[in-house]
Amino acid sequence: MDDPSGWSRTCRLAEITPDMDGEPITVMGFVREIRDVGKLKFILLADITGTMQLTFKGGTEAFDATTDITKESTIGAKGKVNSNSKVSSGIEIIPDEVVVFTRAEPSIPIQVSGKTDALLDTRLDWRFLDIRKPKNALIFKVQTTIEAAMREYWIEHGFIEIHSPKLMGSPSESGAELFPVIYFDKTAFLAQSPQFYKQMAMCAGLDRVFEIGPVFRANPSNTTRHDTEFTSVDMEMSWIESHEDIMKFEEEWLVYVLNKVKEMHGDDIKAMYSMDLNIPSTPFPRIAFNDAKKMLEEAGRDVDEKEDLTSDEEKALGKMIMDKYGSEFVFVKEYPWNIKPFYHMRKGDDKGVTKGFDLLFKGLEVTTGSQREHRYDVLMKQAKEKGLGEENIKFYTDFFRFGVPPHGGLGFGLTRLIKQILGIENVREVTFAFRDIKRLFP
Amino acid sequence: MDDPSGWSRTCRLAEITPDMDGEPITVMGFVREIRDVGKLKFILLADITGTMQLTFKGGTEAFDATTDITKESTIGAKGKVNSNSKVSSGIEIIPDEVVVFTRAEPSIPIQVSGKTDALLDTRLDWRFLDIRKPKNALIFKVQTTIEAAMREYWIEHGFIEIHSPKLMGSPSESGAELFPVIYFDKTAFLAQSPQFYKQMAMCAGLDRVFEIGPVFRANPSNTTRHDTEFTSVDMEMSWIESHEDIMKFEEEWLVYVLNKVKEMHGDDIKAMYSMDLNIPSTPFPRIAFNDAKKMLEEAGRDVDEKEDLTSDEEKALGKMIMDKYGSEFVFVKEYPWNIKPFYHMRKGDDKGVTKGFDLLFKGLEVTTGSQREHRYDVLMKQAKEKGLGEENIKFYTDFFRFGVPPHGGLGFGLTRLIKQILGIENVREVTFAFRDIKRLFP
Repeated sequence: MDDPSGWSRTCRLAEITPDMDGEPITVMGFVREIRDVGKLKFILLADITGTMQLTFKGGTEAFDATTDITKESTIGAKGKVNSNSKVSSGIEIIPDEVVVFTRAEPSIPIQVSGKTDALLDTRLDWRFLDIRKPKNALIFKVQTTIEAAMREYWIEHGFIEIHSPKLMGSPSESGAELFPVIYFDKTAFLAQSPQFYKQMAMCAGLDRVFEIGPVFRANPSNTTRHDTEFTSVDMEMSWIESHEDIMKFEEEWLVYVLNKVKEMHGDDIKAMYSMDLNIPSTPFPRIAFNDAKKMLEEAGRDVDEKEDLTSDEEKALGKMIMDKYGSEFVFVKEYPWNIKPFYHMRKGDDKGVTKGFDLLFKGLEVTTGSQREHRYDVLMKQAKEKGLGEENIKFYTDFFRFGVPPHGGLGFGLTRLIKQILGIENVREVTFAFRDIKRLFP
Repeated sequence: MDDPSGWSRTCRLAEITPDMDGEPITVMGFVREIRDVGKLKFILLADITGTMQLTFKGGTEAFDATTDITKESTIGAKGKVNSNSKVSSGIEIIPDEVVVFTRAEPSIPIQVSGKTDALLDTRLDWRFLDIRKPKNALIFKVQTTIEAAMREYWIEHGFIEIHSPKLMGSPSESGAELFPVIYFDKTAFLAQSPQFYKQMAMCAGLDRVFEIGPVFRANPSNTTRHDTEFTSVDMEMSWIESHEDIMKFEEEWLVYVLNKVKEMHGDDIKAMYSMDLNIPSTPFPRIAFNDAKKMLEEAGRDVDEKEDLTSDEEKALGKMIMDKYGSEFVFVKEYPWNIKPFYHMRKGDDKGVTKGFDLLFKGLEVTTGSQREHRYDVLMKQAKEKGLGEENIKFYTDFFRFGVPPHGGLGFGLTRLIKQILGIENVREVTFAFRDIKRLFP
């Protein structure tokens, strides 16, 4: 029906409490389960908040309206609350009237209730059915809370929200892994990060800024942690003393965020993911990049101290830090210049070392940050050293000619944080609609 | 200097109050003005919160450190608060020590203090300097408050935040104004709106969702209200009775948002933009599309009632509604089917009319919304009627096969709202880094 006049939801399912016994209500949801026992029919109705049993007695109009109903159909039901039900919650609804909004095709590609043995690829093909499972819907509730808490903390600390352009006239960081866009008679590129624009905001005097938005990387690899489009959490702060200020801010901010997640979803996470959410204590352990490599070497690994930590090394380091300090988080700092981008500031006394850092959470890199080089002449020299074309980045280096605050910031992978919080292996499972070299649908 | 050890800001400029007289502080900012009167030098220091006079006495170390300083250079100053100053605020700082972080080139492309006569295009070329003007920085403070208030209201009303993909395998709404992306060996398209994915979220049972993110339109026109990339504010709600539910939600939400803006920035808006922010009363006036066209015709205009409201008609209608109802806002509803997309629901009794609406604010369209067609067979028929290729939208129409809540939603242009609030003519002035057919930099 197109205009269900008079069909207005009075409450969501989890809002029905025992003290509402006998009250008339109107509920709406998906038909998750149907059980037919002759003169009685039970429908388990589901909405975003939970489930509720509807109990139909044979011979009633409501009973007849449910003939031929299929699982996952959407319905509305007007009826009364019965708080003396035999179901485990003690509450059911006795409907007087039912409307079927849409009837689901009977042969559903993946089961919503119960265990599914569908392959991940099939689940992603039918992502909207997969998300109906409460365990998967919880991912997006947790995401909502994470982002709200992040922004709350930022705004309390004087941050301004920006929306940087995703269409760029030239590559943002390097020429690699770029998606070209046919832009009228020109070529544009999709932003790989808001890096240059966060720094533009510092040069614009906005003091402290944040952005949560999409970034794009033409990465052809197929791993459990890479995608071609993901949600990047970015912040940048002016008037800092050093990268230590950024790390200090980040750890306090994360503790605030994790506390909110625990408060809002701790019970659901425990029930659905069988795990407790730990609130870390601050300061997080900090380890210099060279010392991290040494620790790995001493543990018998064959390391290359000139290269970034491999994914295996991150995992091993995460475990060692947990054993040594009891922390799920660790800052790895003082990265070598050769593996960091040209805009990272180098240490005054050691030009081979940057004021850059990563944050690992349960053995996975979730953040890259640094103090940025704000001195025009040094920045130009560093860009040249890294072989960047002066013309390509002129719009960016021009930001540094007319007064710049000392500043730094970080980028943070939202889905990586969520997957580590919930102990989910694959980033595909925590992304609303995943993108990689093979997947552009749904 | 790269590591100003010991140079840690103790407060922002607006946080310095008269009762801090004699207190030692460390402040940082841009050198907005310099006045040299022989044995005294005055620097007007500026940060995101305001300005503060630094008064230097000749012969001191601090005085000497400011030799050769240029306007817009960045400095730090340690000194004491003097609450008995002759400046209008009564407060100045007497610095003991000064550090120059960066020295600005003396010939600055556009003036930051005082009036500028630079052309808009020059201002956009040097956007980071233009934003240093407090009047322009206020735009982004207002934006931050608007978005925070929007999300607060949504979350209080059970909404979930999503991030829909911007890379799509096929066009989102129509084949027009699309940006193709070279996606490995395929072609992808940039999302023109999160429409299909908001609806996917409804089919996924997420109940109510919101997203604030970029959308892309390959619109070659050069107007004061169009861009190729802008920030879209999107929401979608399940279990609605009709599009009236969406309009009702939107007006309450906007009143909440505008109240927050007034509370936080009302004084600054009055001081810098010479205007009062009106809080509208609800419900906003509603007018059927046909009646709007009739009103325009009766006012002597030559209207085409089969076509959408032109930009001139929107302006004229805005004025008429203000005269008649005293409202800056008006919902235009019941749009004809021929000018609305295939997924809008049509009225049961009149197939030529949709359950779609626009919201005008001071004579400018800021919202398009509707109840969506949730019935698979009707949706397929409507897509066919509009000439959409079945294969292109199969991933989307498949969402409707396995149970769908009745739902609706809206899209909202963030910069349009801001420009109307502040009475700014051109959308270029309220966008952080504007994009159109000619502009991809900065």
